[in-house]
Amino acid sequence: MNRGIIRYTLGRILCFTALLMAPSLIVALIYNEGWPGLFPFLLSMLATGLTGFALCFRQPAKKDFYAREGFVIVALSWLSLSFFGSLPFLLSGTINSPINAFFETASGFTTTGSSILINLGSISHSIIWWRSFTHLIGGMGVLVFALAVMPKIESADVFIMRAEVPGPIFGKVQARLSSTARILYIIYLSMTAILVILLALGGMPIFDSFIHAFGAAGTGGFSSRANSIAYYSSPYIQYVLGIAMIMFGINFNLYYAALFHNIRNFFKSEELRWYLGIIGAAMLLICINLSPMYDSVSLLIRNVFFTVSAIITTTGFSVTDFNHWPVFSRVVLLLLMFIGGMAGSTAGGLKISRVVIYIKSTLHELRRRISPNRRLPMSFEHKSLGDELVRQTHFYLSTYIFVFIGIMFITAISAPTFITAFSAVAATFNNIGPGLDMVGPAGNYEGLNDLSTFALSIGMIMGRLEIFPVLVLLSPRTWPRG
Amino acid sequence: MNRGIIRYTLGRILCFTALLMAPSLIVALIYNEGWPGLFPFLLSMLATGLTGFALCFRQPAKKDFYAREGFVIVALSWLSLSFFGSLPFLLSGTINSPINAFFETASGFTTTGSSILINLGSISHSIIWWRSFTHLIGGMGVLVFALAVMPKIESADVFIMRAEVPGPIFGKVQARLSSTARILYIIYLSMTAILVILLALGGMPIFDSFIHAFGAAGTGGFSSRANSIAYYSSPYIQYVLGIAMIMFGINFNLYYAALFHNIRNFFKSEELRWYLGIIGAAMLLICINLSPMYDSVSLLIRNVFFTVSAIITTTGFSVTDFNHWPVFSRVVLLLLMFIGGMAGSTAGGLKISRVVIYIKSTLHELRRRISPNRRLPMSFEHKSLGDELVRQTHFYLSTYIFVFIGIMFITAISAPTFITAFSAVAATFNNIGPGLDMVGPAGNYEGLNDLSTFALSIGMIMGRLEIFPVLVLLSPRTWPRG
Repeated sequence: MNRGIIRYTLGRILCFTALLMAPSLIVALIYNEGWPGLFPFLLSMLATGLTGFALCFRQPAKKDFYAREGFVIVALSWLSLSFFGSLPFLLSGTINSPINAFFETASGFTTTGSSILINLGSISHSIIWWRSFTHLIGGMGVLVFALAVMPKIESADVFIMRAEVPGPIFGKVQARLSSTARILYIIYLSMTAILVILLALGGMPIFDSFIHAFGAAGTGGFSSRANSIAYYSSPYIQYVLGIAMIMFGINFNLYYAALFHNIRNFFKSEELRWYLGIIGAAMLLICINLSPMYDSVSLLIRNVFFTVSAIITTTGFSVTDFNHWPVFSRVVLLLLMFIGGMAGSTAGGLKISRVVIYIKSTLHELRRRISPNRRLPMSFEHKSLGDELVRQTHFYLSTYIFVFIGIMFITAISAPTFITAFSAVAATFNNIGPGLDMVGPAGNYEGLNDLSTFALSIGMIMGRLEIFPVLVLLSPRTWPRG
Repeated sequence: MNRGIIRYTLGRILCFTALLMAPSLIVALIYNEGWPGLFPFLLSMLATGLTGFALCFRQPAKKDFYAREGFVIVALSWLSLSFFGSLPFLLSGTINSPINAFFETASGFTTTGSSILINLGSISHSIIWWRSFTHLIGGMGVLVFALAVMPKIESADVFIMRAEVPGPIFGKVQARLSSTARILYIIYLSMTAILVILLALGGMPIFDSFIHAFGAAGTGGFSSRANSIAYYSSPYIQYVLGIAMIMFGINFNLYYAALFHNIRNFFKSEELRWYLGIIGAAMLLICINLSPMYDSVSLLIRNVFFTVSAIITTTGFSVTDFNHWPVFSRVVLLLLMFIGGMAGSTAGGLKISRVVIYIKSTLHELRRRISPNRRLPMSFEHKSLGDELVRQTHFYLSTYIFVFIGIMFITAISAPTFITAFSAVAATFNNIGPGLDMVGPAGNYEGLNDLSTFALSIGMIMGRLEIFPVLVLLSPRTWPRG
């Protein structure tokens, strides 16, 4: 383990993070928040920047960088970001408990969108901005962002991207990685900018347009309104956001391929077809199930479309309280929560590609056991599915279940109901946001004890980084003595 | 696929099943039930026996018998048994709906113990006896029983036992299979007989002693009392039953090995140590969690011991309504429900050995990924854990999850609450019995619609046969045209 390079890279990431707090200063100035609005960010920038500078002041002795260093750096960075990013909440007095502030910040960066804040109306614009801005940064990855703007950070780009970008298969665009990262971020930010404009054109105030565009882009779900997006009843806004969420749940490599290669590549993606197919099937099932409850077909379709889009992309915005939907519809939604969006997108969950691999490999295994002598092909994305990939994807599932159970044990100690405990873990570990019951769309995570809040925060980071980097960081094998 | 041999074997199993209804006639005679008590069984025996005779009248042309035939026979037998076994319920007028009668019988044979009967007090002794007797037969396996008493049934013993006996590894006692089956059944029936005596000595009426011994032996859980075992508050009875359930959740090959080889083999079993360790850990956690609710330590320990024993062995007896326990304790119980007993026992669930393989292989995989160059050993039961076994065990998990989701979709259509739907599937698929909420210990499965009841019945059979035989039966590949 090359500790020097970890220290150095972490330092640079922190310096970079300090810069990301600057836009909040501008918001504080625009809204005339004065010194009480400015100093939490100035002080946080100073603390983050100085820590970062102290860490990267000295160049590392050795330059070797391998997968293990990549995992450790990514996990350490996300933990540090959630710590330093929580300073503005604490310094401004918005949140008093450091654990709660850590939770809120981790929830932002991991694009979960779970909140412990109760009264959004009394919070300053600069804080609301920072809270949602973390979604934008976390969505595509903080370190990928750093790679994009500081291309000469290290020769370690592949390992960092592999650790931070979600999905079982690391995409095709491995060559010239820092320039790839830059292009991916340009696509991402352009899409976000277009969304801001479209929302503003629909009559949403410009500040709210930014906030909700960040929420949709990162598939996070933080809002500037107490009742979230339900504040805006305009069908136009709901459709724009619904379509936007689905688009941010698509693998960004596809946009890259469509822009630089051939637009037909986009629709040739098997994962995309499954993604759209699952959305369509879920909408159909829920519409049939809900139809007796709605008089207006257009309202039914709009509500179902928005909800399915918000859930499968793990954004967690809600226009209607699906807690009151029939059991069948909630089972469909629960399944979508675990499936999540596409690999290489900003969404959480298991990811479409993993679910497809589970379905295909399980069916293949059953066919193989029924007809042991026949050689049966198994392919995904027009390529043969390798045994090693299938094996690792299945191990991901068992690891996922074990971590889930572990966090659930801790949460169950202070949760008032079973559903609260289960859905709190499901909603944070899959980076969705609101759960059910006490932590439902109308509720809040504020009632859980500190241990649970901390465990759920680590759960969010594990969910966002797909577990493994955090386990590497925590493993004693990573840190041999001496 | 050798259809002739399937027809022939199924026929012989049905003839054998007709004989198993005979003890109910004796019960009807003892309790002076007269013609209304006798004719349901006489008629059912006639129908089952004649059907069986018609099927096995003609010898099969070919004698080849492979794994596939074994799976199909076992799955077909269990479906037919649940059908013919439901005739006494229908003919006696105890249950009016054929679907509900099928559910109740499948619940008996699969040792699930879920019930749609509401008023147990008004039901005749012979019917109560038959209902619980199915637990005794189903526990060790109907076909294994048939092998034991009709040793010359076919040369196909290995394939049948492999399909019917639960667990990921097919045990060590493969030689002289029909005599092995006979010895296993002798051990099983002797243990049941001892339990009947011990319960009767504790002051339980002799009929109830039989019924509850059958319930514990098959780890099924049907009772003769409306409030189940809670009717008996004697600590002696609760401890006897609690210990008995744990003993019936142990792999019967261990008893065999202890009797015929060396008693030390018994405690050398790694799976046994995990089983007892999990029981101990669960008891400790729940006792700590519940201690503020109890004044009496002895009552606390007794209730927790009985409940943990009833849940991990998937028996489902209850002495206290754990629906009202704190969330943490219920999470522990839920975990135990999915873990289940040991392989080769009468218990359901995933089985201890599978769970151990998941834990060991997942930790191994993580270590391997952190230190890719180190060769790390992985063993279970003092033998190296083979890749193929690990692979198949992981595929079992994904298949299990898919089947679970499928049944849950159907159940969700008519379930009044989410917990009802989820726990109904968990309780039937894992062969436990009572779920939570509407289908909880104080509730009943009678409120679900026919489609759900049927799906849950098939789920119980899939759970008992560990999914695969039923899938083979349903697969179109098993039945090529022509």
